[in-house]
Amino acid sequence: MPDSIPAQETKAITWREHLYEIIFEADTPAGKVFDICLLITILLSVLVIMLESVDSIESRYAKQFGFAEWFFTILFTIEYGARIISARRPLRYIFSFYGVVDLLSILPTYLISFYYQDSDQIHRLAVIRAVRLLRAFRIFKLGHMLSGAAELRAALWATRSKITVFLATVVIAVVIEGAALHLIEGPENPGFSSIPEGMYWAIVTMTTVGYGDVTPETPLGKCLASIIMILGYSLIIVPTGIVTAELAHAGNKLKSGIITTQVCPECMREGHDPDATFCKFCGSHL
Amino acid sequence: MPDSIPAQETKAITWREHLYEIIFEADTPAGKVFDICLLITILLSVLVIMLESVDSIESRYAKQFGFAEWFFTILFTIEYGARIISARRPLRYIFSFYGVVDLLSILPTYLISFYYQDSDQIHRLAVIRAVRLLRAFRIFKLGHMLSGAAELRAALWATRSKITVFLATVVIAVVIEGAALHLIEGPENPGFSSIPEGMYWAIVTMTTVGYGDVTPETPLGKCLASIIMILGYSLIIVPTGIVTAELAHAGNKLKSGIITTQVCPECMREGHDPDATFCKFCGSHL
Amino acid sequence: MPDSIPAQETKAITWREHLYEIIFEADTPAGKVFDICLLITILLSVLVIMLESVDSIESRYAKQFGFAEWFFTILFTIEYGARIISARRPLRYIFSFYGVVDLLSILPTYLISFYYQDSDQIHRLAVIRAVRLLRAFRIFKLGHMLSGAAELRAALWATRSKITVFLATVVIAVVIEGAALHLIEGPENPGFSSIPEGMYWAIVTMTTVGYGDVTPETPLGKCLASIIMILGYSLIIVPTGIVTAELAHAGNKLKSGIITTQVCPECMREGHDPDATFCKFCGSHL
Amino acid sequence: MPDSIPAQETKAITWREHLYEIIFEADTPAGKVFDICLLITILLSVLVIMLESVDSIESRYAKQFGFAEWFFTILFTIEYGARIISARRPLRYIFSFYGVVDLLSILPTYLISFYYQDSDQIHRLAVIRAVRLLRAFRIFKLGHMLSGAAELRAALWATRSKITVFLATVVIAVVIEGAALHLIEGPENPGFSSIPEGMYWAIVTMTTVGYGDVTPETPLGKCLASIIMILGYSLIIVPTGIVTAELAHAGNKLKSGIITTQVCPECMREGHDPDATFCKFCGSHL
Repeated sequence: MPDSIPAQETKAITWREHLYEIIFEADTPAGKVFDICLLITILLSVLVIMLESVDSIESRYAKQFGFAEWFFTILFTIEYGARIISARRPLRYIFSFYGVVDLLSILPTYLISFYYQDSDQIHRLAVIRAVRLLRAFRIFKLGHMLSGAAELRAALWATRSKITVFLATVVIAVVIEGAALHLIEGPENPGFSSIPEGMYWAIVTMTTVGYGDVTPETPLGKCLASIIMILGYSLIIVPTGIVTAELAHAGNKLKSGIITTQVCPECMREGHDPDATFCKFCGSHL
Repeated sequence: MPDSIPAQETKAITWREHLYEIIFEADTPAGKVFDICLLITILLSVLVIMLESVDSIESRYAKQFGFAEWFFTILFTIEYGARIISARRPLRYIFSFYGVVDLLSILPTYLISFYYQDSDQIHRLAVIRAVRLLRAFRIFKLGHMLSGAAELRAALWATRSKITVFLATVVIAVVIEGAALHLIEGPENPGFSSIPEGMYWAIVTMTTVGYGDVTPETPLGKCLASIIMILGYSLIIVPTGIVTAELAHAGNKLKSGIITTQVCPECMREGHDPDATFCKFCGSHL
Repeated sequence: MPDSIPAQETKAITWREHLYEIIFEADTPAGKVFDICLLITILLSVLVIMLESVDSIESRYAKQFGFAEWFFTILFTIEYGARIISARRPLRYIFSFYGVVDLLSILPTYLISFYYQDSDQIHRLAVIRAVRLLRAFRIFKLGHMLSGAAELRAALWATRSKITVFLATVVIAVVIEGAALHLIEGPENPGFSSIPEGMYWAIVTMTTVGYGDVTPETPLGKCLASIIMILGYSLIIVPTGIVTAELAHAGNKLKSGIITTQVCPECMREGHDPDATFCKFCGSHL
Repeated sequence: MPDSIPAQETKAITWREHLYEIIFEADTPAGKVFDICLLITILLSVLVIMLESVDSIESRYAKQFGFAEWFFTILFTIEYGARIISARRPLRYIFSFYGVVDLLSILPTYLISFYYQDSDQIHRLAVIRAVRLLRAFRIFKLGHMLSGAAELRAALWATRSKITVFLATVVIAVVIEGAALHLIEGPENPGFSSIPEGMYWAIVTMTTVGYGDVTPETPLGKCLASIIMILGYSLIIVPTGIVTAELAHAGNKLKSGIITTQVCPECMREGHDPDATFCKFCGSHL
C-alpha cells in the first residue's frame, strides 16, 4: 500500500482535477486563496442584500444595488458551472446539500428578470432572494481548518439521542402548559384564545425569552406561570449538562486528531482523517 | 438459574399473556408496531384538539372534529379495556400513573355527551379535554429504547437532594425579594400592590424570563432589582453545574448498561436490567 | 481518646444542656421534632403575612390575621427567650446572624402596638414585617441533614476568587456599556437619560432578563445593543463553567464525608465532621 | 542560576527603578499600597462621572463636580507622567493598551476647557468623558493576585477556535432568521421592515433577552419564532459546554501554578511564572 500511493501521485493531473482541487479542497495554496476570495464575495453579496432591504438606502442607491446584484449573480453562476464541470460525478454534486444551496443562491435574480413588468411584484420577490444567504454556510469549508468545528460536531452528534428525548419532553410540556393556561386565562385574556396561542406563550416562557406580548393576568394563571417558569428553567438546563458532559469526554478523545479539508470526489462528503487513503463513507480513492 | 428460564419459556403462552406482551412491552416486533401506531394516533388526536381550540378553524370543520373526537375516544376506550383485561393485576394498572392518565384521556368526551343541552357549557368542557394530552407521555415507553432516557433520569434522580436545597433557597429568596420590592415600590406601582404580586415579579426576574408587565419604577427599586438580577443569575446557574457534574459522572457509569422496555407484570414499573429475572421493585418474576 | 468521650457522656446533663440539644441541634429525636414544628410554624406565619398584604383578603379577615400575628409573635418570643437561656454564651447567640434574624422577626409586631394611633401608619409598618421572612432561612439547619447543602456550599466557596474576578468584569462592562448607550441614545430616548439609567438597561440586558421597559431606538444603539447581547451572553456563561468544573471536582472529594448538624456551643458555627470532638473554628468541646 | 539572581538583586537600584516597581508592579508593599490607592481613586472618579450624568444631581452640585473633575484629572496626569518617566521604554508604554487608556482618561477634561464658550456643547462632550471609565480595568493588575483571573483567561483563550466557529454559526443563523421573518412579517409588522431590523429581533430572541419591542404577529411568524427559540436555545448552550469542559481540564493543569504580578520592563506584558528570569514574550530580563 505505501508503494501504490506515490505511484498514483506521479500520474499526470488533468486540468479538471486541478480545478477540482482549487474549488472543492482547501489544502493547496490555490485552494485556500480561492476559498478566502469566495468568503469575501459572499459576505459582500449578503451585505448588499441586507442594505437593499432598508427602504431609505434602497431608494437612494437602487441602481448601484441592481448592478452589484447582477455582478454577484454572474460570478456565482460561473462558479456553479465550474463546480459542475470539475466534479467527478456532477449529478451527485447538484443534488448534494451545498449543490442545492449554490443553485438557490443564483436562481432568484434570474427569476426576477422574467417578471419585470409589475414593480411591486419585484419588490416582493426581492425578499425571497434572502434565501441566498444560506450560501454563507460555505464558510465552514474554511472552518474545517479549525479543529474546533469537527470536535463540536462530534460531541453534538454523540448527544443526539439524549437531546431528542429532552426535546420530546419539552414539546409535551409545552402542549400541556399551553392547554392549561388556555383553560385558565382563555375566557378573559385574548392572548390565550386557543391552545396554539397558549403553546406560543409556553415556548416564549420556557426558553426564558419572555417577550411580554402575552402574559397571564388572573391570579391562578400567574401562580401556574410561576411554577412553569421555575420547573421550566430546571428542565431547560438539562441539555447544557448533556452537551458539557459530552464535550468533557470528547475533549480527551479528539485532542490528538487533526482533520483535513479533503472532500471525497465521489460522494462529496468531508471529515476524513489526514492519513485516510479511501473515503470512509463510500470507499472511493481520495 | 440458567436452566429454569428456558424451561419457563417453553410453557404455553395464553392469549392474555400474548396481549400483555403486545400492549405493555416493546421488545417483540408486534409490541413495537403497536406502540408506533399508538404514538401516531395520540399525536393525531392531540392535533385535532389543538385545531379545535382555534375558533376560526372550529367554526368551519365542527362536524369533522366531532367525528374525529368520537373515533379517537372509542379507539382509546378499546385500548383501555384491553389493558385492563391483559394486566395480571388489573387494579394495580388502573391506579398506576399511566392507568389514571389513560382513563382521564377518554372520560371528558363521555361526560360532554351527558350535558349536551347547553352548547356554551360544552365549549367550556371541551377545553378540559386537553388533559388528555398527558397520554402523549406514553411515547416514553418507546423512548426507553434510547439508552439516553434512562441515563438522564438516573442523573437527575442522583441530584435530587442538591436540587431540593437549591429550590428551597430560590423560594426563600423569591419571598424576601418580593416583600422588599412590595415595600419599596408598593405605594406608587400597582404591579407591586401585594407580596404575592412582588413574588410573581421576583420569579419572572430570577428565571430571566423578564416579561416586562411588572417593572420597578423608583430609583431604589431599580437599584435593588439590578442587584437581584446579578445575584439571581449567579444563583440560578448552580443547578446547571449540579446536573452537569452528575451527568459527567453518570456518563462513565451507565455507558455499559442497556435497559430493556420490560414492564413488571405485578407493580407496572420499568427500568429493569436486561439480565434481570425478577422485578427489582417488588420481586415478582418478569 | 475513645475512653474520654464515653466518660464525658456519662456526666449528668442539666436541663439547660437538654434544652440546648433540642433547640440548637437536630441530631436527637426531640431536636428533629422541634425543628420540624418550627419549620411548619414559620411557613404558616410567612403565609399569613403574604395573605395580609393582599388588600381584598386583608379587608375580610383583618381580625383573624391580627390574632394569628400575635399568636406567632408570642410563640417566637418564647422560642427566642429559650434560645438565650439555653445558649452557653447568650451574647454570642444574640449577635450571631441567626440571633439578629430571630430578634428582627418578632420586633415589628411589638413596635406596631406602640404606634397604634394612626391606622395608615400601621399599614405602612406592617410591610416592614416582611423582613421576618428571613427567619425561614433557619430551615437550612434541617437542610444540613441533606449532604447536598454542604457540598454545594464548599464548591461555591472554592470558586469565590474566580467569581469575584468575573463579577468585577461584569460591573465594569455594565458601567462602560451604560455610558456608551447614554452617549448614543441619551438625547432622543428618555430611558437613557443618565449613566445609572443606562447601567440599569445594561444589567437587564446582560442578565438576559430583558424587560423591554427601556430599549434602544436609534440604529446605532440597536447595533451596539446586539453586540452587547452576544458578547454579554458569552460573558455570563463563564460562571456556569466555573461552578460546574468545581462541582465536578468537589463531587469526588466530598462524596465520602457526611456532616452532622451539631452547632458549636461556644461560637454557634456549624459544619463539623461527624468524628470531630472539638469545634474546628474556636476549639471548644462539642 | 540560584547564584546569579541574588547577585543581581544586590545591584544598586536607582530611583527610576524604584518608581517602576511601585507603579508597575504589585509584589512589593509600596506597590500594593499604590495600587489600592489608585483603585479607590478610580472608583471615586467613576462615581463622580455617574452622578454628574443625573440631571437633578448635576444642577445642584455642578461646582463640586467641576472641582472633583479637575482634582482627579490632575492626579491622573501626574500618575501618567510618572509612568512615562519610570518606564524603561516610554514609547512602548504610551502605545500599549493601558498607556492609551491612561491618556484617554485624562484627555476629555483638557479638551473641554478649550471649548468653554458654548455650554450645550460642553454638556455633550461631558458624556464622552465616560470613556475614562475604561481606566477601571487597571483594577485587574490587582486581580492578578487572584490566581483565578489567570486560570480563567487561559481557559477562555484555549477555547477561542471553538467559540469562533460557534459565533460564526450564530451570526449566519441570525442573518437567515432575520431575513425569513422580514419575508413573513415584513408587509404587516413595522418591526420587521428590513433585514437588519429582523436581525436585531433574531439576536434579541436567540440570546433569550426578549425585550418584546418587536414580536411576530402572524401565525406563521409565531410558529417560526417558536422553532427559532427552541433551536436557538439549544444552539446557545453550546459555548457553556465548551467553556466548562475547558475549565474542568484547566483546573487540573493550573492548580499548581501561581503567577506573579511582574510586568516585563521591555514589552509591558504580564503573566510570567514566579521562577521566570526572562520575559517569555520578548526575552528581556525581568
